[in-house]
Amino acid sequence: MSAAPIVPPTRVLAVASHVVSGYVGNKVAVFVLQSLGCDTAALNTVQFSNHTGYRHWTGTKATAQEISDLYRGLKDNYINDFDMMLSGYIPGAEGVLAVGAIAKELKAASQQRPGDFFWVLDPVMGDNGNLYVAADVVPAYKSLLSYADLIIPNQFEAELLSEVKITDMDSLAAAIQALHTKHRVPHVVITSVSIASPDVPAGHLCVVGSTMTSTGGARLFKAVFPSIDCYFCGTGDMFGALVTVRMREAAATSPSLMARGSWVSDDDVAAVDLPLARATEKVLASMHEVLTHTKDAMQGVVDRTLAAMATEEERSGEKQRMLAGKKAAELQLVRNLDCLRTPEKSIEVRPF
Amino acid sequence: MSAAPIVPPTRVLAVASHVVSGYVGNKVAVFVLQSLGCDTAALNTVQFSNHTGYRHWTGTKATAQEISDLYRGLKDNYINDFDMMLSGYIPGAEGVLAVGAIAKELKAASQQRPGDFFWVLDPVMGDNGNLYVAADVVPAYKSLLSYADLIIPNQFEAELLSEVKITDMDSLAAAIQALHTKHRVPHVVITSVSIASPDVPAGHLCVVGSTMTSTGGARLFKAVFPSIDCYFCGTGDMFGALVTVRMREAAATSPSLMARGSWVSDDDVAAVDLPLARATEKVLASMHEVLTHTKDAMQGVVDRTLAAMATEEERSGEKQRMLAGKKAAELQLVRNLDCLRTPEKSIEVRPF
Repeated sequence: MSAAPIVPPTRVLAVASHVVSGYVGNKVAVFVLQSLGCDTAALNTVQFSNHTGYRHWTGTKATAQEISDLYRGLKDNYINDFDMMLSGYIPGAEGVLAVGAIAKELKAASQQRPGDFFWVLDPVMGDNGNLYVAADVVPAYKSLLSYADLIIPNQFEAELLSEVKITDMDSLAAAIQALHTKHRVPHVVITSVSIASPDVPAGHLCVVGSTMTSTGGARLFKAVFPSIDCYFCGTGDMFGALVTVRMREAAATSPSLMARGSWVSDDDVAAVDLPLARATEKVLASMHEVLTHTKDAMQGVVDRTLAAMATEEERSGEKQRMLAGKKAAELQLVRNLDCLRTPEKSIEVRPF
Repeated sequence: MSAAPIVPPTRVLAVASHVVSGYVGNKVAVFVLQSLGCDTAALNTVQFSNHTGYRHWTGTKATAQEISDLYRGLKDNYINDFDMMLSGYIPGAEGVLAVGAIAKELKAASQQRPGDFFWVLDPVMGDNGNLYVAADVVPAYKSLLSYADLIIPNQFEAELLSEVKITDMDSLAAAIQALHTKHRVPHVVITSVSIASPDVPAGHLCVVGSTMTSTGGARLFKAVFPSIDCYFCGTGDMFGALVTVRMREAAATSPSLMARGSWVSDDDVAAVDLPLARATEKVLASMHEVLTHTKDAMQGVVDRTLAAMATEEERSGEKQRMLAGKKAAELQLVRNLDCLRTPEKSIEVRPF
């Protein structure tokens, strides 16, 4: 493995949650971005002891004012010269709008130099039909969509943003088309699609992406890959960080593309040949390897965690066993740098 | 470069400041620890927009209560199973004592398994004769010294802790001996020694370290290396993170050493053969390479930063030029992973 950076010098503003222990939000994104060579500014929207999947946590949230103040500090010191921004979990609608104001300002500042700023927006709102943010966060994100270059909702978030109920592949395509047409989002990837479909066999997952044409048409591609039978937290954050770097990498192969607003390819580029498609392939390959390693190590982590508990009562406690499982499911990132930088396996996209 | 981890599985609690942009405190330590394969829990004692060398910054500090609460969250979830702890800047004496309470608790929990917990304490208080924390921070650190396994003060901090005025190599040795004898600190490295000495030629710096014997005697070694004529922030934090990993790496070559309290070598091991000496050599080699790359890139960063400013008035402003210099002096870590993992140059320690 060579440590040569895979992207040209890239300065990224990463805005998301921070956990002391474990891997979600910026704790995933910052390490992934840095390992792949990006100079990363990390604006942490919360500092919690651990992710909320453990059910109990301590810590504090940043207010919208604190988020704005931190950005003002950067601006006052001429260190807000970001090439890209990746935003993830933000507590509350006011915070979302504060982060949106940062993105709008950075976008406006790059207006004379198209392609010089690119915002990857992960509209963290919920999953599998459950909203886990306040209801007013949804319209806050909607109001910001037209400033985003790439959005990476899951299926439920894509429904909320597009207002298209997704029940099959046709309505999924309609949702992406609505995001292109109504909200002018140039690039969309729906990161977890759970739709029964002939070409998504049992035990497989599907990701669908598109880069719009100059007339706003969708160019749809999909990737189908074996699922790993386990629930991990932080996978959306890993997807976001990886796709940020890989999109930059793919766009950087063409200087003319990098000098174009939102790095949107010419209309004659087919869906499966899009930079977004190339990026998605590498992202999914890295993720599959990291998740496989994490899964393989899980039982060992559970066993060691339980063995280290002080009493037999603790070791056999239901809560303790649940907590050991949560710890074991934390993404194994730091000892799997190779998977991030140079994934071996390839996951190919195909026409939708 | 191979991405194979250089240490056995290692879980580190890193407690220090966080800056959104740039590289000091945990922003240095967490990346360095993670890149070298440590599963790192990052407890951020502040979140500032940038380091205070820029003169202006925004952000918030964590209270002592918030620090304690974050640790309690970890403990409640059985995720406080740390092999090592690295503590850096902590705002205020109450915060220092709160962090000390965490270290004491982790140390007590490992009492039945000597060597299972190792605390690297960077007593951040000041430099070059200037205290930049409140006066009551000094006794707070003193009260914690006997719980630390390795401390890494600079020369001024070593004076404050040992109460020995350091004016020459003899008094430097006396200060280290006092830290071993009076405070029972097993390992000490004084990270920046500015003493005129025949074997420290002009343009060179010196680092002095020691691991005490079973009778509390010092085993002194030193390293002399060319200085880089520039002021960088975050070098102490880089030293701390690197020495944490490299000490673990050096100790891990001997299973019997790892099973001994504080990883203290047998009395017959000479100073220059100590694991701490081996660790220091690698740390200094990595640092020299990172700082050289940073220095080489500085003028380019200054030029680009000034060129990006909106008006000629800004470009020629004294404040703006100062700020461009601060930005340029930020450690170039993320694109120099090789320097961290596999430094090419070697900096050898010698007898004191």
